[in-house]
Amino acid sequence: MDKIDEAINSIEPLDERAMAEARRRQDNLTKPQGSLGQLESLSIQVAGIKGDPRPRITHKVIFTLAGDHGVTQKGVSAYPSEVTPQMVYNFLRGGAAIDVLARQVGARVVVADLGVASILERHPQLKDKKLALGTHNMAEGPAMSREKAFRSVEAGIELVEEELTRGIDILGTGDMGIGNTTASSAITAALTGVDVAVVTGRGTGLDEEGRERKMKVIQKALEINRPDPKDPIDVLSKVGGFEIGGIVGLILAGAKHRIPVVIDGFISGAAALIAASLSPQVKPYLIASHQSAEPGHKKILEHLGLIPLLNLNMRLGEGTGAALGIFLVEASLKILNEMATFAEAGVSEKI
Amino acid sequence: MDKIDEAINSIEPLDERAMAEARRRQDNLTKPQGSLGQLESLSIQVAGIKGDPRPRITHKVIFTLAGDHGVTQKGVSAYPSEVTPQMVYNFLRGGAAIDVLARQVGARVVVADLGVASILERHPQLKDKKLALGTHNMAEGPAMSREKAFRSVEAGIELVEEELTRGIDILGTGDMGIGNTTASSAITAALTGVDVAVVTGRGTGLDEEGRERKMKVIQKALEINRPDPKDPIDVLSKVGGFEIGGIVGLILAGAKHRIPVVIDGFISGAAALIAASLSPQVKPYLIASHQSAEPGHKKILEHLGLIPLLNLNMRLGEGTGAALGIFLVEASLKILNEMATFAEAGVSEKI
Repeated sequence: MDKIDEAINSIEPLDERAMAEARRRQDNLTKPQGSLGQLESLSIQVAGIKGDPRPRITHKVIFTLAGDHGVTQKGVSAYPSEVTPQMVYNFLRGGAAIDVLARQVGARVVVADLGVASILERHPQLKDKKLALGTHNMAEGPAMSREKAFRSVEAGIELVEEELTRGIDILGTGDMGIGNTTASSAITAALTGVDVAVVTGRGTGLDEEGRERKMKVIQKALEINRPDPKDPIDVLSKVGGFEIGGIVGLILAGAKHRIPVVIDGFISGAAALIAASLSPQVKPYLIASHQSAEPGHKKILEHLGLIPLLNLNMRLGEGTGAALGIFLVEASLKILNEMATFAEAGVSEKI
Repeated sequence: MDKIDEAINSIEPLDERAMAEARRRQDNLTKPQGSLGQLESLSIQVAGIKGDPRPRITHKVIFTLAGDHGVTQKGVSAYPSEVTPQMVYNFLRGGAAIDVLARQVGARVVVADLGVASILERHPQLKDKKLALGTHNMAEGPAMSREKAFRSVEAGIELVEEELTRGIDILGTGDMGIGNTTASSAITAALTGVDVAVVTGRGTGLDEEGRERKMKVIQKALEINRPDPKDPIDVLSKVGGFEIGGIVGLILAGAKHRIPVVIDGFISGAAALIAASLSPQVKPYLIASHQSAEPGHKKILEHLGLIPLLNLNMRLGEGTGAALGIFLVEASLKILNEMATFAEAGVSEKI
């Protein structure tokens, strides 16, 4: 808990002076004021996060955290749990969607095992933060102990802090875990109070019958465990997942170290809900990359007051949306840094 | 007219076989089917456009076409007309938003003068397709002759065909022209039948009083000129602009040469309306990059049945939205080409 408290206590508000200076520069660039919309506001947010009116990003890191879910015994996913470790190996070989998009945007991918339900082969690029061989089945009791919930968040903080020496100017969150939309729907229902039916989707590809089964399982998990919405760690331990706790830690560490945090889709969004419940101070550090096809994600974004940059009907996770979001943040900073001002270009200003 | 007819007559439907093959590959990549949403459908569309199930794009070109508008005499813009040539020089020096974003996505920018209201200095990177020193004031009569409307479209076709030797795998459209949202609103009202009030926005930054003046000017131009919605060249000549005609030509030439055409915002959208009226066959070649903050753009996208990739509240033009769209198209093709299949990665398929 020390590491979590320490992170929360060191989160500062954004730097208003850097933001005002970035705003002033945006207003002097050769375009009508405000005409680049969110590309302008993004650059100003990042200026505030970094305390630098002309920030640049070189080191881009996407953290893809993997964990398994005991609840998959209940037939809540279209894919078997064995896909989680198989996909981890796919990440490490560079064949997954996140690898392709991270290469395109020049980000490095840090893959970590937070709780995959099998012993993974060692790999120089795989971070071992395993807390257990998957969570317990949340439809029968808590997914994990309170202690493990804390430790999963701490593991996420550690991942960021271990990578700091290699440089992190911006971080993207990502997940892999068969069954983790079930956990995310349960978290979303618990923390926002929105009905389970509204926040439960088809995940990797359930049919309507499957979605109804999934809703019943989530309902049962909430009834049995009674997660306390005022205690986000309680929610994480009762109906969460190890990789979700890890992402909570990524977010807290990002805010602590003044790093913009580009959140991915529904799973990362559920983690952001927990992080923002632990400390509302994290919110200004968050950038919502896209709006997932998972219906619960919209509710999360509304709850956090975030406007997604993209709406491509994606629902893959891994950090794929975050990779595209990082590109847009970089675009916003290039605009801020590289465009000519009216004075430099000899362009007339508004009448 | 020969060049236009020839382009229209050579536009073919997309290649269904290439699309089916690309779809099959997408379905075998290591992700749930459909989970990358529009990134999947984009790649399939481009496969159909190029007649290649695994297309790649190397040469990316954004055409930024400039022209002036006589109607600016009527106080319809927040900026003076002299900004049009000033911005052309800014493009050529690399200081404009389009230069920054094109550099980021690795696209070259082709700047062309279709009808700027002053004599521009020669520049090796500036294409001279000048048809006049700006259009006539459309509130007092036709913006241009029917002959010049044809020639502006032909000029756009020529621009693409002149660049073909340097390679164009994908093209983005862009515009610069003080007063051209006025023309675009008029075109949109004429071709969609939607009320002027609904399709008229604040352009580069009018206040509400200015917007009302602009609406009256557009209404007057439509009443005086009575553009025939069944004759898109009539609409272009009566209430259009030279750069808008040029963009119509870019679109026709793109479709003729099986090049995906990423359309920018409102001005390019008005040109797309004209192009699609000339030949509905162009539609499958179009990719809508973003939804502009200009209210008329939404109507255009609905009319053309296009779903924008981005919604960043941008309203700059120049091809800035197209540049971001090109990045997303490239992402979609990298997914198609670089991801591992289930078989290659040894990942289990759906239960």
